[in-house]
Amino acid sequence: MSQHSDNQSSSSGGSLEPSAYDRDASIEMLEWIRELYPINRSLTGPGVRQTLEFLATLIPELRRHQIASGEPVFDWTVPDEWTLREAFIEDSQGRRLVDANTCNLHVMSYSEPVNEPAMNRQALDEHLYSLPSMPDAIPYLTSYYKRRWGFCLSEEQRSALGDGPFRVRIDADLEPGHLDYADVVLPGESDSEIFISTYICHPSMANNELSGPSVATALYRWLKTLPRRRYTYRFLFAPETLGALTYLSRHLEELKSRVKAGFILTCIGDDRAHTVVRSKYEDTASDSVASHVSRHWHREVEFVPFTRRQSDERQYGFPGVELPMVTVCRSLYGEYPEYHTSKDDLSVVTADGLAGGLSFVRHCIESLEADTRYEATTIGEPQLGRRGLYPTLGQKDTRKLVENTLNVLAYSDGRNSLIEIADRIGCPVTDLSTIAQRLQEAGLLRLSDQT
Amino acid sequence: MSQHSDNQSSSSGGSLEPSAYDRDASIEMLEWIRELYPINRSLTGPGVRQTLEFLATLIPELRRHQIASGEPVFDWTVPDEWTLREAFIEDSQGRRLVDANTCNLHVMSYSEPVNEPAMNRQALDEHLYSLPSMPDAIPYLTSYYKRRWGFCLSEEQRSALGDGPFRVRIDADLEPGHLDYADVVLPGESDSEIFISTYICHPSMANNELSGPSVATALYRWLKTLPRRRYTYRFLFAPETLGALTYLSRHLEELKSRVKAGFILTCIGDDRAHTVVRSKYEDTASDSVASHVSRHWHREVEFVPFTRRQSDERQYGFPGVELPMVTVCRSLYGEYPEYHTSKDDLSVVTADGLAGGLSFVRHCIESLEADTRYEATTIGEPQLGRRGLYPTLGQKDTRKLVENTLNVLAYSDGRNSLIEIADRIGCPVTDLSTIAQRLQEAGLLRLSDQT
Amino acid sequence: MSQHSDNQSSSSGGSLEPSAYDRDASIEMLEWIRELYPINRSLTGPGVRQTLEFLATLIPELRRHQIASGEPVFDWTVPDEWTLREAFIEDSQGRRLVDANTCNLHVMSYSEPVNEPAMNRQALDEHLYSLPSMPDAIPYLTSYYKRRWGFCLSEEQRSALGDGPFRVRIDADLEPGHLDYADVVLPGESDSEIFISTYICHPSMANNELSGPSVATALYRWLKTLPRRRYTYRFLFAPETLGALTYLSRHLEELKSRVKAGFILTCIGDDRAHTVVRSKYEDTASDSVASHVSRHWHREVEFVPFTRRQSDERQYGFPGVELPMVTVCRSLYGEYPEYHTSKDDLSVVTADGLAGGLSFVRHCIESLEADTRYEATTIGEPQLGRRGLYPTLGQKDTRKLVENTLNVLAYSDGRNSLIEIADRIGCPVTDLSTIAQRLQEAGLLRLSDQT
Repeated sequence: MSQHSDNQSSSSGGSLEPSAYDRDASIEMLEWIRELYPINRSLTGPGVRQTLEFLATLIPELRRHQIASGEPVFDWTVPDEWTLREAFIEDSQGRRLVDANTCNLHVMSYSEPVNEPAMNRQALDEHLYSLPSMPDAIPYLTSYYKRRWGFCLSEEQRSALGDGPFRVRIDADLEPGHLDYADVVLPGESDSEIFISTYICHPSMANNELSGPSVATALYRWLKTLPRRRYTYRFLFAPETLGALTYLSRHLEELKSRVKAGFILTCIGDDRAHTVVRSKYEDTASDSVASHVSRHWHREVEFVPFTRRQSDERQYGFPGVELPMVTVCRSLYGEYPEYHTSKDDLSVVTADGLAGGLSFVRHCIESLEADTRYEATTIGEPQLGRRGLYPTLGQKDTRKLVENTLNVLAYSDGRNSLIEIADRIGCPVTDLSTIAQRLQEAGLLRLSDQT
Repeated sequence: MSQHSDNQSSSSGGSLEPSAYDRDASIEMLEWIRELYPINRSLTGPGVRQTLEFLATLIPELRRHQIASGEPVFDWTVPDEWTLREAFIEDSQGRRLVDANTCNLHVMSYSEPVNEPAMNRQALDEHLYSLPSMPDAIPYLTSYYKRRWGFCLSEEQRSALGDGPFRVRIDADLEPGHLDYADVVLPGESDSEIFISTYICHPSMANNELSGPSVATALYRWLKTLPRRRYTYRFLFAPETLGALTYLSRHLEELKSRVKAGFILTCIGDDRAHTVVRSKYEDTASDSVASHVSRHWHREVEFVPFTRRQSDERQYGFPGVELPMVTVCRSLYGEYPEYHTSKDDLSVVTADGLAGGLSFVRHCIESLEADTRYEATTIGEPQLGRRGLYPTLGQKDTRKLVENTLNVLAYSDGRNSLIEIADRIGCPVTDLSTIAQRLQEAGLLRLSDQT
Repeated sequence: MSQHSDNQSSSSGGSLEPSAYDRDASIEMLEWIRELYPINRSLTGPGVRQTLEFLATLIPELRRHQIASGEPVFDWTVPDEWTLREAFIEDSQGRRLVDANTCNLHVMSYSEPVNEPAMNRQALDEHLYSLPSMPDAIPYLTSYYKRRWGFCLSEEQRSALGDGPFRVRIDADLEPGHLDYADVVLPGESDSEIFISTYICHPSMANNELSGPSVATALYRWLKTLPRRRYTYRFLFAPETLGALTYLSRHLEELKSRVKAGFILTCIGDDRAHTVVRSKYEDTASDSVASHVSRHWHREVEFVPFTRRQSDERQYGFPGVELPMVTVCRSLYGEYPEYHTSKDDLSVVTADGLAGGLSFVRHCIESLEADTRYEATTIGEPQLGRRGLYPTLGQKDTRKLVENTLNVLAYSDGRNSLIEIADRIGCPVTDLSTIAQRLQEAGLLRLSDQT
């Protein structure tokens, strides 16, 4: 006696292409990026504050925080605030050869002030940075903790500079101020948290800098519309490295006890690859769900090991912290040609790229929300037919549904969550969550105490 | 100083082709199948009882059991008993167009009575089941829990029916009675059990229905002849699903505490593939021994995951039950073309097929019987020579024996059973069991307390 | 904010070819082997003592030990001592057809005395051993525990013997004496030991017999020159099997509690393969370090399982002993054509072969010495720049150094030793040990309590 009588295989698919929501959001994200692009952000200073002010118009609940220069942050100290007014190199005729007003990458971030009326080429050259391998690109450089100054320029500009003498001026302050960052917590049914972290500390670079905050913001706005959230969601917008460290220094135990999964968003707006940087031991719920989503995703996702990390996963994965997080990129930082140069401009970030980045993270979150752990309440298979959960004669179109139903029951033994069951079957967890809810309503599954 | 001096490799082989016993038994099995084939079995009713009566002539110790209709069995209830007297469709001239006397698959199992003197074609069609993809085959259908009636017929018969009117009659009772099943326990030295389960609830289908009980019976009769059995053997002949559930409802704790390994036998008489359906987590002694036997087996065995289960492993593997069992088939149920149709007739089941099916399970049992866990009693290798366990000069024909002897000693550290050692060496466990017994007799091995 | 800004991959290499030390040592080793080659060693007797006397001139600290015949050694007993004076077969004209003075392999080791004035060919043939497959080679045979006598000769010699009668004489004593062996312990900072074991019990065979003691001696002399040794080093020179068992019977608990890793050296002087015989479960520090060294080694190393063991790993890996050791060979014993024949002469052992064997073991030891386990002392990445551990602007030549530094920190969480971190990164552990020491000096790493 068989509850079902044929066995042909059919693929349920599980189309995870960007949804209409993602596509609509991508148009908004492009607008936000255009607004934020010109701002001259750095580790600290007015650029960070302007950026947070703009984000607060999109996320009214955003909470802003300031840490004073000189405050210790674990092994670090919050540095002085850097405010740039202008930076240029002029020739003897007063023509501006290099000007930070043209492109804010021209001045090395955190450059100390300089005012040289007549500098010769040789002396100037020691303060110039260009990329011979990309002659028309301006590199991005910083020197947060060592006092120096510098200009970044294209190899072509450098060749055309002439012999000087040059008037060299950087009008900047390096004075006690604050490190600025912002967070927001969106409560759910459980205290367990999904943590989204992104950074806001680079000048005019589109993919490296602005795709992350934009996708995080769109994600927040989507989560807010959900009728039900099992998890609480925490978002952080902070300068890279020192901002993450600062946040950890204020919230370490809270994060360690609450964060079930998390995603660091960076370089997530171009329309090339999808890349996930694994956690240190590749064993977290974030790793599992990213793998799960990638298996049912139409584009290829490249998973790279933690040893290739370059962003805030360096802090979140450090001994003593070790939050269960992965980093989600389109093109991996450091790997795409425009990375950390003036070429990472508005043309690199596209609606498709942003929609796809948002879609990936949204599917991770939808999968985590669906990933409940149940236990069967009967001994042996229950009689599905009398509950209307089973076709009384084998019908092809219901066969996969019946198989999934029986597999959800058989593997709901306290050892598997729905994602784990879906991975055994080879279907998206979202195919199983409705089934599981119906079985729970019929009293055939109960929530498991196991975690 | 080396205990052996040459190192050429030789394969001990381990021929596990059907033995003379299996070949002789296959002739008997074919006779049993011919006897049992015409009986109109269903979930309950006289067909099941006739079948058990016949099996009792082969296994005198068989214990028969009856559970009354209406008795609860976990989430289920034993249904009324179904007794079919006749079922036919006649044309207006009284010619029988479809007749269950010709083939008992023609009537849907558990059809309620019907007696329509003049039914038109359109009304009749709603009760007809055929297979467009196999136009000359009669499909097999049941409706145990939903009251309805139906006729199964070939597509060719259906095309030739004409427009009617038709006299349609199913003379059947659906009245309180019993669910019948039988078991038998063959004691061994230990209370630990090997459990063999097969079903007896389908009408005239040869491979799907009768190969299982026949191989189980031949296995029982072989086990009875053994001079020594380490394990106790339990055999169950019961209707699929509800019979298994009923047995579990009466013996659950006993089975959970005693069953060390088990085999569900179904579709085990054709001469095509060998297939093993893995247990839920593929981690039981039954999985290991089936893998072990398949490695030293001359035909290819396909292992398929538990997610493709369709027989009583669905109950035995369910949460709260989880007996350590695998299912052994030749062609996998649902996968061979004749499955669940009138084409699954006596031509599908062959002497070779039955002998090979029996051989596979017999080798599993022989391997389990041989699979002891020992511990070496010496520190460092013992002096085999003075015990006559070692050739005093290197001889080629004893080299493999010496290697096996030394490996049995070296791996008998409490962590490995003989099958595990054999799997490391790549030889059948039966190559090692005689060696181990000689070593035990010589005081160089003792039985391990580890399990 | 990124601590490093480019991501191009470069291989640090880690050239582990034989060093100048290994090359110089190989010349010495060849000299030692030429000295030791003619000695007629056996399980016991003057040949073993002469060999140990010679080794004591190279290792003045060598401690010599004697165990009397008749002493029990676990399941064994020390046999009588065997002293051979002469052994020959003469024809009726007094011509010596076979003479142990020509090649000491001609007499089966431990042959009992015989003095037959006129033996016929048929009677003699029962005491002759030759290799039809290698007609010009004299095989090597022993009969330590069963009293018999025999001559080993080439197939060519055997064919030319004629019909006899023959004068057959073996002038040998089998009388109570001693089993001789020697050990030496070179102390290090820790009581934990690295154990090197090799054997000294075969007559004139170069690779099988003399490469092991020579490489062990060169290794000892190198270790003695090191300014610092974390581990204590123990060397054993003993007859195979019974010598190893004897040593275990005297030092079992000490060895089990102290030995962290160990290497059995045999057949390690030819210039063909590198082979490592794994430990029983392939899970020891010796297995890991051998894998690590082989990954960064320019020649291919073949790893073979413990089931192919033929030397003292049989005792060291036996239940109740199970020291964490692997065996290091060039060509694996039993696998190279000259093995256990007169063809294993001085031409088989080369300077390249000995240097490469020494180099492999030396790199294992250097890696073990470098394989510390640390824990990071900061939460989040420390500020490397202010400690001079970080270039203040991204420079290509320091990129790999920075990556390695950050990976050492991130994975120093108590779960990984430096070799484990190196294996994750894919670099030799020696690339990381200097980094780790600098981090420890800077207070950013501390030694871990985990082991």
